[in-house]
Amino acid sequence: MKILVLGADGYIGWPLSLRLSSLGYDVRGLDNFVRRQRVQDVGGNSVIPIADFRIRSNIVEIMTGNMKYLPSLQGYDVIVHLAEQPSAPFSMRDVGSCWETVNQNVLGTINLLWRMREQCPDAHLVKLGSMGEYGTPDCVIPEGIIPEECIAYYMDVGNYNKCVMKGLQFPKQPGSFYHLSKVFDSQAIEFACRAWGLRSTDTMQGIVFGTRTSDIDHADKATRFDYDQYFGTVINRFCVQAVLGIPLTVYGGGYQKRGFLPLKDSIECLTLAIQNPPDTGEYRVFNQFAMTQTVNQVAFSVGSVANKMGLKPHIENVGNPRVENEKNYYEPKHDRLKALGYEPRWSLSKEIQGVLEDLIPHKYHINRKVIYPTTTWR
Amino acid sequence: MKILVLGADGYIGWPLSLRLSSLGYDVRGLDNFVRRQRVQDVGGNSVIPIADFRIRSNIVEIMTGNMKYLPSLQGYDVIVHLAEQPSAPFSMRDVGSCWETVNQNVLGTINLLWRMREQCPDAHLVKLGSMGEYGTPDCVIPEGIIPEECIAYYMDVGNYNKCVMKGLQFPKQPGSFYHLSKVFDSQAIEFACRAWGLRSTDTMQGIVFGTRTSDIDHADKATRFDYDQYFGTVINRFCVQAVLGIPLTVYGGGYQKRGFLPLKDSIECLTLAIQNPPDTGEYRVFNQFAMTQTVNQVAFSVGSVANKMGLKPHIENVGNPRVENEKNYYEPKHDRLKALGYEPRWSLSKEIQGVLEDLIPHKYHINRKVIYPTTTWR
Repeated sequence: MKILVLGADGYIGWPLSLRLSSLGYDVRGLDNFVRRQRVQDVGGNSVIPIADFRIRSNIVEIMTGNMKYLPSLQGYDVIVHLAEQPSAPFSMRDVGSCWETVNQNVLGTINLLWRMREQCPDAHLVKLGSMGEYGTPDCVIPEGIIPEECIAYYMDVGNYNKCVMKGLQFPKQPGSFYHLSKVFDSQAIEFACRAWGLRSTDTMQGIVFGTRTSDIDHADKATRFDYDQYFGTVINRFCVQAVLGIPLTVYGGGYQKRGFLPLKDSIECLTLAIQNPPDTGEYRVFNQFAMTQTVNQVAFSVGSVANKMGLKPHIENVGNPRVENEKNYYEPKHDRLKALGYEPRWSLSKEIQGVLEDLIPHKYHINRKVIYPTTTWR
Repeated sequence: MKILVLGADGYIGWPLSLRLSSLGYDVRGLDNFVRRQRVQDVGGNSVIPIADFRIRSNIVEIMTGNMKYLPSLQGYDVIVHLAEQPSAPFSMRDVGSCWETVNQNVLGTINLLWRMREQCPDAHLVKLGSMGEYGTPDCVIPEGIIPEECIAYYMDVGNYNKCVMKGLQFPKQPGSFYHLSKVFDSQAIEFACRAWGLRSTDTMQGIVFGTRTSDIDHADKATRFDYDQYFGTVINRFCVQAVLGIPLTVYGGGYQKRGFLPLKDSIECLTLAIQNPPDTGEYRVFNQFAMTQTVNQVAFSVGSVANKMGLKPHIENVGNPRVENEKNYYEPKHDRLKALGYEPRWSLSKEIQGVLEDLIPHKYHINRKVIYPTTTWR
């Protein structure tokens, strides 16, 4: 199988490229390395040092390029699209960062779809979306499509059968311009499958955390680890705060419930999707996460592991920079990956312990000034 | 009331600017005149001659500018946003035209929202969307939000109350990259109202036809009239074909049912929206059309009026260039504009007769080579 990984230099793109290579697939990567630049521009860095482009390319071949000027896609069986600006707060920073986000994500995906149609219409597009696309509605969230069991009708029309919404895409409620761009991508891919007969797995992923996969067995294979207010996601950021001995900053009340999964599971799930392609013309959505937890729960978990390791963590509630419900019902379905064999086999404490162990040797790399949120939604 | 009309040189933007001026409002227009250029590039033109920029500007002041470099929005009470690439087939033509469409519409709207937030957060944004954003689901289409009367539940969860989808935006099923860009805009505006407290009326408009409004009382006030495969909409195109004595080309079986309204009603409805603004932070959706008809029905109406006027129309079914259901259930709600006083008062035959009368003197302006569809979705 010949696989192209777009965004192969990223937090997920790099370890996924390693895994697919280990499995014996013919893997090429593509990246424009703008993530490294953006993290530097906001004053952050990867706590765990990552190899530079040339060293990485000796392990898995990564081409330099971007989504607007793609190399030929001819001959590829799978295109994995991870080449997006991945930060919600970055997209809310100012009009320029918002524009950059929407431009990269929306126009990048558009260009990819047209190129796939011309050059590899039968290839499987594996696209990384976000559970955040759905927002936090007061109802069960299906995997993409409103299912048969969901019946809807208008009292005033009185025609029960005519008003079933089954088969429509479940409504999305994005909470940032980043999430808006991801919703656009999902709808564009669904359309390209419907109109052009492309095939795709669109992965609505929860919040990823962690440092380790089975392929990261050498310092040169480490993946990046961000903690700044823009690119640091919640568990990873809490771990950095615990290592520094500064407060774990919970945004608002901390009752926000979200889906989470460790990095190694993200890689496993994406690999399962690649190994089990959808039919021609099929647009398939996976909700990809292992567990749901509130922000307070994950802060408490990081705090108690850190405590056992002799660190002195404490938790502090700070003003919520985001516009979101601070307490939400959350019951997303996530059966499809399980049906392909995915089963989480890890304990949250052990995963967090691994992260803390990996961070401690590099604690002096951390710039603590860039952690606290200054970009707000309002 | 101080009003800025973005896209004031367009088919709707120009007569709307005339109307708002007649009503005594302080109106400024903005346009980059790219529509004139694009129609010329595809070999078309406005059948009815339109005044050039300087003449129009002596009637209503129109500034030259675009959505990326907007003038100051300070002091405006209303921003009417009509400055989008409006053609679905144009967006499907090739990757370049698709890119142009998404770039103009999506990034233009993004930029406008940030500028409004900074410069006129209390102004009323009146945005032109499309009924086509909804697609053609097998159920009643509400005005934006899934209403109270719509109940949904999962059998397997068994918790009736927890699974109500009311309050979520009704799912959209865009059928072209143009429609995808409009869906993005709608979601971005909804988000900006929710997160930033902007206020907006988002108008899901049906297919507009016609040449006349009460303000168009002089040749220099005429609005453009397109008929080419990209910018000519269905009734207008049928009228041109009738005038030329060439077949009225119905795409596919012609059973596609859609919402329609004459130009004068479009102007009236937008004016009603402007005169009845939503509350601060409110995102309000109007479904704006007067009647639903199948394509065959409107072809038949144009044919019979043309026949009475001594033309020799005939109807021909041609291969459908679009990917769409050729027969669809269609029952969109459209109560909100009626509640503000909108009531259609015209007969379709008389409207069509007016169009044919206005076109006949200019029949030699028509380039018949650009009418037949060559851009296909597949």
